[in-house]
Amino acid sequence: MSAPGREVSDTVAELKAREEGEPIASFLKMRLVELKAGYARVSMKLLPEYQNFNGFVFGGIIMSITDQAFAYANNSVAYPSVATQFNIHFIAGAGADDELIAECRVVRSGRRVGISEMTVTNQEGKLIAKATGTTIPVSKD
Amino acid sequence: MSAPGREVSDTVAELKAREEGEPIASFLKMRLVELKAGYARVSMKLLPEYQNFNGFVFGGIIMSITDQAFAYANNSVAYPSVATQFNIHFIAGAGADDELIAECRVVRSGRRVGISEMTVTNQEGKLIAKATGTTIPVSKD
Amino acid sequence: MSAPGREVSDTVAELKAREEGEPIASFLKMRLVELKAGYARVSMKLLPEYQNFNGFVFGGIIMSITDQAFAYANNSVAYPSVATQFNIHFIAGAGADDELIAECRVVRSGRRVGISEMTVTNQEGKLIAKATGTTIPVSKD
Amino acid sequence: MSAPGREVSDTVAELKAREEGEPIASFLKMRLVELKAGYARVSMKLLPEYQNFNGFVFGGIIMSITDQAFAYANNSVAYPSVATQFNIHFIAGAGADDELIAECRVVRSGRRVGISEMTVTNQEGKLIAKATGTTIPVSKD
Repeated sequence: MSAPGREVSDTVAELKAREEGEPIASFLKMRLVELKAGYARVSMKLLPEYQNFNGFVFGGIIMSITDQAFAYANNSVAYPSVATQFNIHFIAGAGADDELIAECRVVRSGRRVGISEMTVTNQEGKLIAKATGTTIPVSKD
Repeated sequence: MSAPGREVSDTVAELKAREEGEPIASFLKMRLVELKAGYARVSMKLLPEYQNFNGFVFGGIIMSITDQAFAYANNSVAYPSVATQFNIHFIAGAGADDELIAECRVVRSGRRVGISEMTVTNQEGKLIAKATGTTIPVSKD
Repeated sequence: MSAPGREVSDTVAELKAREEGEPIASFLKMRLVELKAGYARVSMKLLPEYQNFNGFVFGGIIMSITDQAFAYANNSVAYPSVATQFNIHFIAGAGADDELIAECRVVRSGRRVGISEMTVTNQEGKLIAKATGTTIPVSKD
Repeated sequence: MSAPGREVSDTVAELKAREEGEPIASFLKMRLVELKAGYARVSMKLLPEYQNFNGFVFGGIIMSITDQAFAYANNSVAYPSVATQFNIHFIAGAGADDELIAECRVVRSGRRVGISEMTVTNQEGKLIAKATGTTIPVSKD
């Protein structure tokens, strides 16, 4: 799903390079730990700023790290892709100073649509959330 | 769905007060614009920090403002509630300096489960995203 | 989103005609009550055969009528389209001899993706389920 | 999550017995192939009646077999449970005379909510759909 004449390995290398200057990655202190064709792993150290009015880690933060893995995994196989749909199940609360890990695996990458699965765990491997999503390749064809 | 002996209007007033010191609300510059029983409206001025590697507004930011409206609307009728599931459709991209508005309406608030609908628009009323979600009241019963 | 040189009104007329011989429509006794560009309404009289092991109307039956409205509404504006994703919230149980009505409105119909909202009510207007879904136009382009 | 004083193995045995007379199981020719605590596998031979106006297998039929596995797996660990939400991704079309297999695994079964994952494959192991869902235990507590 990359542009014709372009290797997936080139896309992976370019995405990795681009992540270093990515505004949202710096802002939310997310780090792309691993990226290969159809798979991404992202980490995020939780900060006190991420708590909501109940003292829990804000759901939008958990969705953000999940979305970051989702974006990188899909763009690695179909560049550029945009997300059209995302569904998440929150399974356990995250502790205020956990380090979260989000992984995304692209289940299917077709010409018109991509389907992915994501998992969020903490530093001890505890399952925090599971998600799935739909992407659309938007290369100028 | 509030605790027995407690008025929904008290919960709304208390949530509004609590939002002022809420860490994630300050961090993401989200503002609770309106809150009444079963309805919340939240605004967020987008910042350059919210862009992803493609120069688009990061999906996790759009999910964050949606989640904030979701959390307030549900807690206004069933306090405390936690989100167990959230599904979003991204409909149009947000501009880098848009001001987003997220609204949540609780469709059903039952003893065991709540169902909500959310809409995100920009300052011109353009539809950016639509979402739905499931919450669970967790009062100690 | 119809094939070039083809009017949406032609597609609507053709879909209506085709529904008469549609195998699943006869099998599940679903009836296309209204169809216009981007909107469909389908009815279904529940039968005793639709009950599950608990004596409730089977969720798959409620999803089926919803899916039928979803399919017609989307194909009316982007023919042919296929569903790639569908999310439903079950809000109230259906009675064993209710008549269900499913409506679908296409929220956005783009060149690459369509987003829709569906509602299921019973003969008294009681809300039974709400759903959303994603479709992909698959015209040979 | 069974009623107090009741073994999960009793619930599994009772559900298996009850499936034999289940109206929807006969009507859609679904068969419970395996059931153990937190896991169910269901099969369904597709019939010509299941085709839609485009000659494809109707999405509601694929959702029905998925929902049947979802229902049995959840009721095996939390009886009775009701579905509150269900999300599916359609990955490949089913052939008109495929035999489908749906499997459900309960990812988390808590006191207030259950989260499950479902997979649908055909007789050759080809992936047809993946789904997730939320259930609510409704035992009289």
